[in-house]
Amino acid sequence: MTHKIAILGASGYTGAELVRIIATHPSMEIVALSAGRKAGMEMGAVYPQLRHLDLPTLVTMEEIDFTGVDLVFAALPHGLSQALVRDLPQSVKVVDLGADFRLRDPAAYETWYGAAHVAVELQKQAVYGLTEFYRDEIRGARLVAGTGCNAATVQYALRPLVSAGLIDLDRIICDLKNGISGAGRSLKENMLFAERATNVEGYAQGGKHRHMGEFDQEFSALAGRPVEIIFTPHLVPASRGILADCYVEGDPGAIHAALARRYADEPFVTVLPFGQAPGMGHVTASNQCHIGVIGDRKKNRALVVSTLDNLTKGSSGQAVQNANLMLGEAETAGLMLAPVFP
Amino acid sequence: MTHKIAILGASGYTGAELVRIIATHPSMEIVALSAGRKAGMEMGAVYPQLRHLDLPTLVTMEEIDFTGVDLVFAALPHGLSQALVRDLPQSVKVVDLGADFRLRDPAAYETWYGAAHVAVELQKQAVYGLTEFYRDEIRGARLVAGTGCNAATVQYALRPLVSAGLIDLDRIICDLKNGISGAGRSLKENMLFAERATNVEGYAQGGKHRHMGEFDQEFSALAGRPVEIIFTPHLVPASRGILADCYVEGDPGAIHAALARRYADEPFVTVLPFGQAPGMGHVTASNQCHIGVIGDRKKNRALVVSTLDNLTKGSSGQAVQNANLMLGEAETAGLMLAPVFP
Amino acid sequence: MTHKIAILGASGYTGAELVRIIATHPSMEIVALSAGRKAGMEMGAVYPQLRHLDLPTLVTMEEIDFTGVDLVFAALPHGLSQALVRDLPQSVKVVDLGADFRLRDPAAYETWYGAAHVAVELQKQAVYGLTEFYRDEIRGARLVAGTGCNAATVQYALRPLVSAGLIDLDRIICDLKNGISGAGRSLKENMLFAERATNVEGYAQGGKHRHMGEFDQEFSALAGRPVEIIFTPHLVPASRGILADCYVEGDPGAIHAALARRYADEPFVTVLPFGQAPGMGHVTASNQCHIGVIGDRKKNRALVVSTLDNLTKGSSGQAVQNANLMLGEAETAGLMLAPVFP
Amino acid sequence: MTHKIAILGASGYTGAELVRIIATHPSMEIVALSAGRKAGMEMGAVYPQLRHLDLPTLVTMEEIDFTGVDLVFAALPHGLSQALVRDLPQSVKVVDLGADFRLRDPAAYETWYGAAHVAVELQKQAVYGLTEFYRDEIRGARLVAGTGCNAATVQYALRPLVSAGLIDLDRIICDLKNGISGAGRSLKENMLFAERATNVEGYAQGGKHRHMGEFDQEFSALAGRPVEIIFTPHLVPASRGILADCYVEGDPGAIHAALARRYADEPFVTVLPFGQAPGMGHVTASNQCHIGVIGDRKKNRALVVSTLDNLTKGSSGQAVQNANLMLGEAETAGLMLAPVFP
Repeated sequence: MTHKIAILGASGYTGAELVRIIATHPSMEIVALSAGRKAGMEMGAVYPQLRHLDLPTLVTMEEIDFTGVDLVFAALPHGLSQALVRDLPQSVKVVDLGADFRLRDPAAYETWYGAAHVAVELQKQAVYGLTEFYRDEIRGARLVAGTGCNAATVQYALRPLVSAGLIDLDRIICDLKNGISGAGRSLKENMLFAERATNVEGYAQGGKHRHMGEFDQEFSALAGRPVEIIFTPHLVPASRGILADCYVEGDPGAIHAALARRYADEPFVTVLPFGQAPGMGHVTASNQCHIGVIGDRKKNRALVVSTLDNLTKGSSGQAVQNANLMLGEAETAGLMLAPVFP
Repeated sequence: MTHKIAILGASGYTGAELVRIIATHPSMEIVALSAGRKAGMEMGAVYPQLRHLDLPTLVTMEEIDFTGVDLVFAALPHGLSQALVRDLPQSVKVVDLGADFRLRDPAAYETWYGAAHVAVELQKQAVYGLTEFYRDEIRGARLVAGTGCNAATVQYALRPLVSAGLIDLDRIICDLKNGISGAGRSLKENMLFAERATNVEGYAQGGKHRHMGEFDQEFSALAGRPVEIIFTPHLVPASRGILADCYVEGDPGAIHAALARRYADEPFVTVLPFGQAPGMGHVTASNQCHIGVIGDRKKNRALVVSTLDNLTKGSSGQAVQNANLMLGEAETAGLMLAPVFP
Repeated sequence: MTHKIAILGASGYTGAELVRIIATHPSMEIVALSAGRKAGMEMGAVYPQLRHLDLPTLVTMEEIDFTGVDLVFAALPHGLSQALVRDLPQSVKVVDLGADFRLRDPAAYETWYGAAHVAVELQKQAVYGLTEFYRDEIRGARLVAGTGCNAATVQYALRPLVSAGLIDLDRIICDLKNGISGAGRSLKENMLFAERATNVEGYAQGGKHRHMGEFDQEFSALAGRPVEIIFTPHLVPASRGILADCYVEGDPGAIHAALARRYADEPFVTVLPFGQAPGMGHVTASNQCHIGVIGDRKKNRALVVSTLDNLTKGSSGQAVQNANLMLGEAETAGLMLAPVFP
Repeated sequence: MTHKIAILGASGYTGAELVRIIATHPSMEIVALSAGRKAGMEMGAVYPQLRHLDLPTLVTMEEIDFTGVDLVFAALPHGLSQALVRDLPQSVKVVDLGADFRLRDPAAYETWYGAAHVAVELQKQAVYGLTEFYRDEIRGARLVAGTGCNAATVQYALRPLVSAGLIDLDRIICDLKNGISGAGRSLKENMLFAERATNVEGYAQGGKHRHMGEFDQEFSALAGRPVEIIFTPHLVPASRGILADCYVEGDPGAIHAALARRYADEPFVTVLPFGQAPGMGHVTASNQCHIGVIGDRKKNRALVVSTLDNLTKGSSGQAVQNANLMLGEAETAGLMLAPVFP
């Protein structure tokens, strides 16, 4: 059975990545694509790498007839999904790739996004889309909120450790190296090629990044007490990928064992042998996440390194993984593409 | 039916690319992988991006039992395929990704590769692997010689024009921009990151590149007279891709029409609307080739731009496309992966 | 004696490059810096790499008192220099880095820039800033018009050949590889890092680039008859540099000899031994231009390769070289910085 | 007065960088250049960007007559400087850019470099080359041991804090992002362009990097007790530069104040306003070091970010700075080159 799919915000990078993945998905068919300023254009003109595909023309959201649509991927700028999802027919399932439904607490949403939530009831029903940890809820959900890409990378590294009480919760430091596509296709001077090509630069340091809200929510819930991590993302001269170095206090061997055990049966998460760490280029354009644990010469200190592709496992691949579950398909359908290297 | 596949030279970039493609191929199964110095290692240690796959351990070629193998991909350094293919069981089909069987004339081989051919009979039987132009011969072949990646890029742009007599055969200039992976995974000082990262540099200019033998052979055969093109490859700071600018004398409109007509039904070659040219990043990690034609302000001068991914359509993707035909599968099986961008 | 310098348009890349060069110039002092939207900011905030310098705050052009200013570098968007230069005190010398005064013929200006020139008298008096060929006129000039960066690269390769009648004037093909900084610091989607990082793409092919006006003017004047070259620039994944491959018909040995002779005494132009070609990374951040000549296997065909840094020798370095002459300083003052590599 | 300079190991990146800097130094003249395998070649053939300079031919060390040489820069592979320096005439001053004389304790040397030191007396006399902290000793030294590039970057960030007791000495975590040139021009598979171009990868994690010996020596001496930091370097896709994120426990305001005060009069170290952090591209190809301090939302946690160019301030620029002092020149002579951007 083929599911009819609409992608809203198809002209952004995560939208294009959804199209790339679905192009070889065995049971999804794209029936509508929307864009803002680029409505009216062909997708192959906006993304020439999609030229060979037979795709619907980009339209505005208002022009889409959602009758018969099984599932909507909403890859919209933050803030635009709330009213939209509220107004969709109940029969349409939704995977939201933006931030609108990630935070369950309206007050937290307002703190981090600077505006009141306009669909508070939906916000409460939304399931957090970190598949490996919310699988059962996702299967039955109408609305799934895709995680932040940084939030996913760090949570794969740390959730089993926080749950098991294996690390000092007051001393978690996460230093991330981020491919530039995480900033999207928006026009900002600091995203120009010449500004980034031979540059590495942190941003939103000190606890100011919006994904902090997700970390606080998830880690505190797991721990049963408030947890605040230290978190620094950096722009590096690469288009895709996130590499997270998580410095923790705890027994390295126990940490590795807990991670290896937790992910032993997961198709998309691989834990490396103890003492090895992955590189960002090991998972490019795939739905894979690689995790490594290294013990420090200082006692009771470990480095947990986690990497994934922000556009795939961190966003559009995760979205398809969740949609597979919501639609009753195999979780891995269309997602076993091997990483591209070099 | 699943075909049993062996890959020789799996530790090089084209070998790894074969594994990447076959990982999601519906009817191929890898039963053996060989390497030279890296024999004994797991493929996931040599290429961590293949960690999640269940693959045979790398062995030496001598250790492989070819009984039951349906098809061998030989991704070996130039010169090593000749004796190997000669000694394989007749029942095993072979796609050679190296240069050993590209040139039909033993004298031409010796000129360009500096040594006598040791399997001259096989050389005569080998079919040249430019699928779109040798499709019928490839279907029935036991041995197919994959083209050079530069040779493929330029031939897609020019073969229909040479055949139809649409361009001046004495004034063909091809200026290529080449991703660094074309040089393979070999240790050369000028391939170090720091040497290439902000550099663009031509090499083998003036007619010295080994792919000249292929151009001479193919274009002269098509034209029925000797044809020598001018050809300059350049290393650019990118890992994958070839963009060929072919400057020709002839009517731009007629040139575009001939190309558009020739490739109208080809699943892997797209001709852009007249006046548009593709970019190298439009086909990354896919089996697609994009071609554009632009007329110059000078009368009777045209620029034909052709681009493909050297590791995919220019090498391993082409090899799988040919293997599909040799094994009786759909030509597109496993090859409809959309290009990766950004 | 120290000359007082004002830089207009200091917030762009060529403006910042002027500051970089002048920072170690023995006889220039920056007394004013202007910017548009960034007026009011400190230069070190706009360009953190200039933080350690003691520089005037950015102001609007109107706020500058030009009394006492010896020379103005105008690094403004095309079209803005005309009225400005017209209204400056006569005592102030001007080096314009934009396109406003490059074309001597007002009709040609209108053709290529789409608007009538508003300072036609000045346009006639402006000296074309290709120092090595207009040295004497530049020494006595009040207004020098910096060349286009592409125009400079190609002219260094071809002027001596056109002058000497060594090449077929109807068959000159120039294929350029251009660092992204040539597009300036303006916000365009196709200049984002993720769009360009693994991409190579031509633009303005077929004779549409504005620098064609300069080529037509200069080569036709040299030849005494209309000359139209074929010209294709390409964006490559590097910030700085232009590499021009010029395909010409003529005797390679004679071509090399003419170039070697012409530049034998030039401090900023080096001709390589016959048969060698330079790489774009050989001149980064310097005022050097490297030229190589290679003979083709086809008789009477040569490849002339020329490379320079678009921001230095192609723009701001050239501007300082011209200013040195206009101010009576040694032509090389402040400009002998060696290229940066890797 | 012009000082006569010999550079040993001139064919490596730090050797070439020394030549680049000295090319515009007002009082240094290069009289000899040595190389190993490349002895006999011209420097302009090994590094085409140095073509325009008039330099001595590369010779072997044995061929150099050290009579009349005032100062030697030894940019040799680790282990080769010891015997060499021991055998030089006493009149020749030496700046060693390698690791041979960085560690004062022979036992520590053997631990980190795996071999006994062969010039233990010299080792004791060598002055550690972190100019801003050993300025007086360097002025009178015959032998100065250049610091490791990582070691310099981190020490600029942390020395004043360790000295003043402002941070918890048991909880210092330094996460570094390193340009590839730090690995030198040696042939290693993981240094190939295609391996690094879109990759970020840590190495020598957990306390295994050789620069740990320097950190232990210097920080423990400052603190008067053993100090062990946690240190993770990463290869990022850039040729030059190191960005160090140092996570510390202490009062952010006091930390910033201590750093600002310490470096207020230093020509090569700039402390940014509180709350701002530098980018790696802000100091490229210069002798500048930029430092920023950011307070975390968690109390008593600070991030100190430090950046410099590993080939300049981290190695060859530092070497010239030290040589200037040893030769009685101004410390800044030849070193005020502004960073290159973009």
